Amino acid sequence: MTKDMHDKDSATRRDFIKAGMAAGVGALLSPLLVKTAHAAAEAAPAAAPAAAAAAAEKPKLKIGDVLRVAREKLYPICRVCPECDGVACAGEVPGMGGIGSGQAFKNNYNTLNKIDLVMRTFHDVKKPDLTTTLFGHKLSMPVTSAVTGGVSYNMGGKMTEEEYVISILGGCMDAGTLGWVADGIGDKMDVFERRIAVLKNMFGGNAIVTIKPKTNDEIITRFRMVEDAGGLAVAIDIDSAGRAARAVPGQTVEPKTPKQLAELAKSTKLPFIIKGIMTVEEAKIAVDVGAKGVCVSNHGGRVLDYTPATATVLPAIADAIKGKATILVDGAVRRGQDVLKYLAMGADACLCGRPLVRGAHGGGREGVALMMNIIKDELTVAMTLTGVPSVKNVPANVITKGQA
Amino acid sequence: MTKDMHDKDSATRRDFIKAGMAAGVGALLSPLLVKTAHAAAEAAPAAAPAAAAAAAEKPKLKIGDVLRVAREKLYPICRVCPECDGVACAGEVPGMGGIGSGQAFKNNYNTLNKIDLVMRTFHDVKKPDLTTTLFGHKLSMPVTSAVTGGVSYNMGGKMTEEEYVISILGGCMDAGTLGWVADGIGDKMDVFERRIAVLKNMFGGNAIVTIKPKTNDEIITRFRMVEDAGGLAVAIDIDSAGRAARAVPGQTVEPKTPKQLAELAKSTKLPFIIKGIMTVEEAKIAVDVGAKGVCVSNHGGRVLDYTPATATVLPAIADAIKGKATILVDGAVRRGQDVLKYLAMGADACLCGRPLVRGAHGGGREGVALMMNIIKDELTVAMTLTGVPSVKNVPANVITKGQA
Amino acid sequence: MTKDMHDKDSATRRDFIKAGMAAGVGALLSPLLVKTAHAAAEAAPAAAPAAAAAAAEKPKLKIGDVLRVAREKLYPICRVCPECDGVACAGEVPGMGGIGSGQAFKNNYNTLNKIDLVMRTFHDVKKPDLTTTLFGHKLSMPVTSAVTGGVSYNMGGKMTEEEYVISILGGCMDAGTLGWVADGIGDKMDVFERRIAVLKNMFGGNAIVTIKPKTNDEIITRFRMVEDAGGLAVAIDIDSAGRAARAVPGQTVEPKTPKQLAELAKSTKLPFIIKGIMTVEEAKIAVDVGAKGVCVSNHGGRVLDYTPATATVLPAIADAIKGKATILVDGAVRRGQDVLKYLAMGADACLCGRPLVRGAHGGGREGVALMMNIIKDELTVAMTLTGVPSVKNVPANVITKGQA
Amino acid sequence: MTKDMHDKDSATRRDFIKAGMAAGVGALLSPLLVKTAHAAAEAAPAAAPAAAAAAAEKPKLKIGDVLRVAREKLYPICRVCPECDGVACAGEVPGMGGIGSGQAFKNNYNTLNKIDLVMRTFHDVKKPDLTTTLFGHKLSMPVTSAVTGGVSYNMGGKMTEEEYVISILGGCMDAGTLGWVADGIGDKMDVFERRIAVLKNMFGGNAIVTIKPKTNDEIITRFRMVEDAGGLAVAIDIDSAGRAARAVPGQTVEPKTPKQLAELAKSTKLPFIIKGIMTVEEAKIAVDVGAKGVCVSNHGGRVLDYTPATATVLPAIADAIKGKATILVDGAVRRGQDVLKYLAMGADACLCGRPLVRGAHGGGREGVALMMNIIKDELTVAMTLTGVPSVKNVPANVITKGQA
Repeated sequence: MTKDMHDKDSATRRDFIKAGMAAGVGALLSPLLVKTAHAAAEAAPAAAPAAAAAAAEKPKLKIGDVLRVAREKLYPICRVCPECDGVACAGEVPGMGGIGSGQAFKNNYNTLNKIDLVMRTFHDVKKPDLTTTLFGHKLSMPVTSAVTGGVSYNMGGKMTEEEYVISILGGCMDAGTLGWVADGIGDKMDVFERRIAVLKNMFGGNAIVTIKPKTNDEIITRFRMVEDAGGLAVAIDIDSAGRAARAVPGQTVEPKTPKQLAELAKSTKLPFIIKGIMTVEEAKIAVDVGAKGVCVSNHGGRVLDYTPATATVLPAIADAIKGKATILVDGAVRRGQDVLKYLAMGADACLCGRPLVRGAHGGGREGVALMMNIIKDELTVAMTLTGVPSVKNVPANVITKGQA
Repeated sequence: MTKDMHDKDSATRRDFIKAGMAAGVGALLSPLLVKTAHAAAEAAPAAAPAAAAAAAEKPKLKIGDVLRVAREKLYPICRVCPECDGVACAGEVPGMGGIGSGQAFKNNYNTLNKIDLVMRTFHDVKKPDLTTTLFGHKLSMPVTSAVTGGVSYNMGGKMTEEEYVISILGGCMDAGTLGWVADGIGDKMDVFERRIAVLKNMFGGNAIVTIKPKTNDEIITRFRMVEDAGGLAVAIDIDSAGRAARAVPGQTVEPKTPKQLAELAKSTKLPFIIKGIMTVEEAKIAVDVGAKGVCVSNHGGRVLDYTPATATVLPAIADAIKGKATILVDGAVRRGQDVLKYLAMGADACLCGRPLVRGAHGGGREGVALMMNIIKDELTVAMTLTGVPSVKNVPANVITKGQA
Repeated sequence: MTKDMHDKDSATRRDFIKAGMAAGVGALLSPLLVKTAHAAAEAAPAAAPAAAAAAAEKPKLKIGDVLRVAREKLYPICRVCPECDGVACAGEVPGMGGIGSGQAFKNNYNTLNKIDLVMRTFHDVKKPDLTTTLFGHKLSMPVTSAVTGGVSYNMGGKMTEEEYVISILGGCMDAGTLGWVADGIGDKMDVFERRIAVLKNMFGGNAIVTIKPKTNDEIITRFRMVEDAGGLAVAIDIDSAGRAARAVPGQTVEPKTPKQLAELAKSTKLPFIIKGIMTVEEAKIAVDVGAKGVCVSNHGGRVLDYTPATATVLPAIADAIKGKATILVDGAVRRGQDVLKYLAMGADACLCGRPLVRGAHGGGREGVALMMNIIKDELTVAMTLTGVPSVKNVPANVITKGQA
Repeated sequence: MTKDMHDKDSATRRDFIKAGMAAGVGALLSPLLVKTAHAAAEAAPAAAPAAAAAAAEKPKLKIGDVLRVAREKLYPICRVCPECDGVACAGEVPGMGGIGSGQAFKNNYNTLNKIDLVMRTFHDVKKPDLTTTLFGHKLSMPVTSAVTGGVSYNMGGKMTEEEYVISILGGCMDAGTLGWVADGIGDKMDVFERRIAVLKNMFGGNAIVTIKPKTNDEIITRFRMVEDAGGLAVAIDIDSAGRAARAVPGQTVEPKTPKQLAELAKSTKLPFIIKGIMTVEEAKIAVDVGAKGVCVSNHGGRVLDYTPATATVLPAIADAIKGKATILVDGAVRRGQDVLKYLAMGADACLCGRPLVRGAHGGGREGVALMMNIIKDELTVAMTLTGVPSVKNVPANVITKGQA
């Protein structure tokens, strides 16, 4: 219980959480706690030495402020709950929740939450190595952004889609990691073109671009554009195929046969990733058809009610294809410990979604970078206290089934 | 996370859910959320183009409005909770809840809820076939109404029993499926006659008629009337036998011996269905005595506190009698995914109860049809994302035990 | 869902429950629900025909009124929650709760609650036989009062101890069953004498009298008094021995060795019962030392935090001593279904506690009888719907482990 | 249900709990319950005989008052919840909660809570022996203080660190047991010196002193000071090593290799204890390197989110090293029953943390002693009702896995 173990950011974050405890349900905001939160917010400038007033235009962003602003912008689409567990927003699609009963989102959170970490301290891992390489790209840690978008209909429309993309890609880059560019089923070609232009002109192509499971021709056209923009890899989020029966012109989505997937893999010189894999069988097919990466994902619990947690299916998938393709996973990554758990289950890297939505809305590019850096810090502590020297080789015995 | 995956109905439904989150407990209605719900309700006419004003007398019904009106009419008998899980109404019989502790109702919901669906997308199931045949009658999907009634004492009396029956039978017919006609222990013969008249005159007999487990003579008299009205099938809901010890003249109910059941089966040319089966043993006897259908049911958790979930007992029953009789099931069918789960467990079709009570009270016949069509849409998506081409042959590996 | 299945008492009870949902937590009483509850209460006289006005001085007691009055008298000691599960009152000893964390009380409730009942309706059990015999005394059903007392310190003191004892013994007798007389560690001899006088003069000794585990001499003196009063049986509630280390003159309690227990059994011509047995080992010893009855009990979860549920230990105890001694059990008996469960686990009869405390406070002797009669009615329905002809031989396959 | 089983302190404690039920969430304080709590508080002087007014300056401290004052001083850092389970304060580090999701703290509580105690009363254990010896020091029971500190940043700063240390060490001594002296990562040498001075001058060295896992040189310097002060034993809380990567001059913490641990063990004539062991492997190493004691601990769930409960790992650790080193454990010790459970799992003694924080803030040294004496009383009852004669040999069959 020492003060030095936790920097001021953490303290501010906790003040927010305390306020959030009351405010999360939307109505029971205790005056006392509000005061505490405000005091924390005001404490920032007050704590700055008077002499630094001129330079204080750009003070270091604090997590408490990011969360506070995020809630103001996202409420009531997202309540920025103290713990982002899919309960408050259950059923809110469009929005930020899980579809239907919300159980698939809750599965992701609850299953991961019940996995414990084995603490070990008799070793000399003082400065664990978090760096890794993803499709040839060096990362400061094995965490990228998840595939999120639809600012106007999912997040309340307080940012433009472009501001959002820049925040995500820029914040990830600033934290030494990588962002993904999302796609929308109904996005017209000019929308996609503007997005690719941002990717190329502002970020030199440093991102993975995912396309909806449109017709192969439409996908291949877009793959070509990503290649031209210098993108690192392309993906399809095949878990978006549920509306196949409702196809309207220009908005086709469809499940894909192995043959169609092979055509896509062959169509591009970039690494091809299939996102939305939830069975060993399809993971093996993905490798067979030439995918360089698979992303174990149930689309954040937003496409098929009652899908299992990604943490439930990941271990068997990793057993089956480890080393044959890069294994990515998303689902309820909230803190560095979650990353360590997924690595211990066999993932090569994780995608982090909802926390970055908060970061982008609460602090733009800087907010996203702050979120990523907090996760990096938490992962460092977790690796030290479990004795894991490197993210590239996390032993399975770092995790254990939770008891309660 | 794409807009096009979800039509405006869904969006309106979610607005309702958000309001419901606060209002469900009866007292904590956040002003902000109320505003949101009202805005959604008002958005409907506002969104209609001015030119269509004349034709706007009959705008398309929206789910958000149906639920809002349903709550106004049903409150506090039914709170129209965001998730209909048997918690708020526990013990309310008469009413809409489970009997006693409410555990039997909660068992139905919780057990079904904990079953997961296996997402698969490497296939070409773009337009799954939902049609099926029930006792020779073609259905647009394997879902009928459940057996609900007692509007005055169970639902608050804001509709007449006749309006209710018309809403259920008409709404189901409009959605291409089928309704059931219920019976009451104390219903006098003239009540039954009026009900049968509606069935015959308005719906050409297109329904299944269920009779309470009265004396065999009383039942057979009513079977004859159903035959004359052109009914599709007859049933007894033998799970209503609990008050046998309290029989008053004209209100006898009783459990039935296999011999009595055989007499009933032989008494009619119509398919004879026994509703209320919860054991393999009685399912086998039902087949032996000549029943053409069984309905696995605990009467919605409303007759015997602590009965297991129908989802708990269905798989073994299906193993025992699959193909020998039509297997129906009710219990916590809330959305299309629930239907897919029950089919994977061996049911031929499901009965849906409480959602249609909402539909009938919130939008009459049109409201019931809307509820059925939403379930149809959800089932289509669920079949696409699990790769199931037809409801007639749903493999067991579509479901898996939930982990959290 | 038929009206006739539930009499008006039930309907009134449910109105209370609805009010209780809001009021149970002590602060959130919805005006609408209060109105409903009041309306229900007022409906009683209104419904009485005017001609019967003169005779209406003593209208039939309604459960809704009993619960309402009970809450007024017991609040906040007991909140008369819709479901009496040990949550609201956790830690309140003295009071009505479980000791410490309240977990032992909650164990009793939760474990019993998770046991399911197997519904069977293909039989001819129309009027099940609930009668049984306990120590030679004929009962209308296998349910007696539990051992409760300490009105002033446990229940708020709105009744005198004597009024309470009369309510319990009289109400049980009126319902055709039997009450127990309790003892207090600190009760002076004159208190015990008055209690025995009531037993003898008002009830002809028709009760079982339990004595605290005082010194054997003190116990035997009291056994003699019970014999003189014509009592049916004597018991010690040995689970009250926890304060042995704190003995003050006249207030000794102590655990007992088998030898001491044998001395007690031999000291009286009445059947000797040991209450507070939670292991097979001690159940066997009880039989060996000459006890004619054992009561599986953890004292309602009020003496040792974290004791298992009685439903957890009962089956093995019944296996070991069935037929060698009468097996009684208490713990969370709330309704007739609970009784059926305990019988299926091997008990010969159950003791019912907290519901009778409500009955006594809400309606005196008549209130206790009403509670007992509701349980009798529920047990009748439960036996009909499970096909159990007699309480004297309840098969184990009536119950099944709950799934959710 | 007897009055004499519970002294007036308990009654007052329950009044507090009732108030706490409402107040714990911070906003819903029922006026009725507040009145009850105040009435209880006021009842104390009122109950004192007028003649004793002069001597009433120092009335016996009551638990209800201690908790009330503790909440006033600790709120909102600690809400002094009726049950201290890690829910309300989840994520509050600094503060009194578990780190991150708070799951590690909740694991400690929930896992221990689900272990049941086997009640046995057929024996002659009337006055169980609670005394034991720890590193040659006689204790009135096998419970010491836990290692808590950081009053200013963890507890709200209403006491000075010195007042706090005196309360803990003095209260434990007054209750016949022992306190621990804590260390802070950033504590300068003069802070440590003042603490050791208090230990030496006020308590004759009667405490165990724990040092953060600084460099071995720094630790050995401090061990020497403890020896000079007459300390009983020294410890390092190696679970504080998580911030190794952030070392700043004078604030190094680090995991330790077995070789480094051996050097520490050899450096002192005092018994050397390693606190923070969560695996069998490290427990064995601790014995091998010469530790005389190990403390199974996850630092109260405050350093690594998702660590298992100490109750989960203790039994295997005890199996491996019982008798080779003194086995201590901390984690959710709330009452005497918890102590008995840990002893049955193989611990030699327990450390109690958060209850003493309440005691110190609510009643200083006297409050800490009162908390310890309540635990002692609860342990006495628990041993009597389980038939355990001595804390030195608690059989494993005293506990059983909880069912609900």
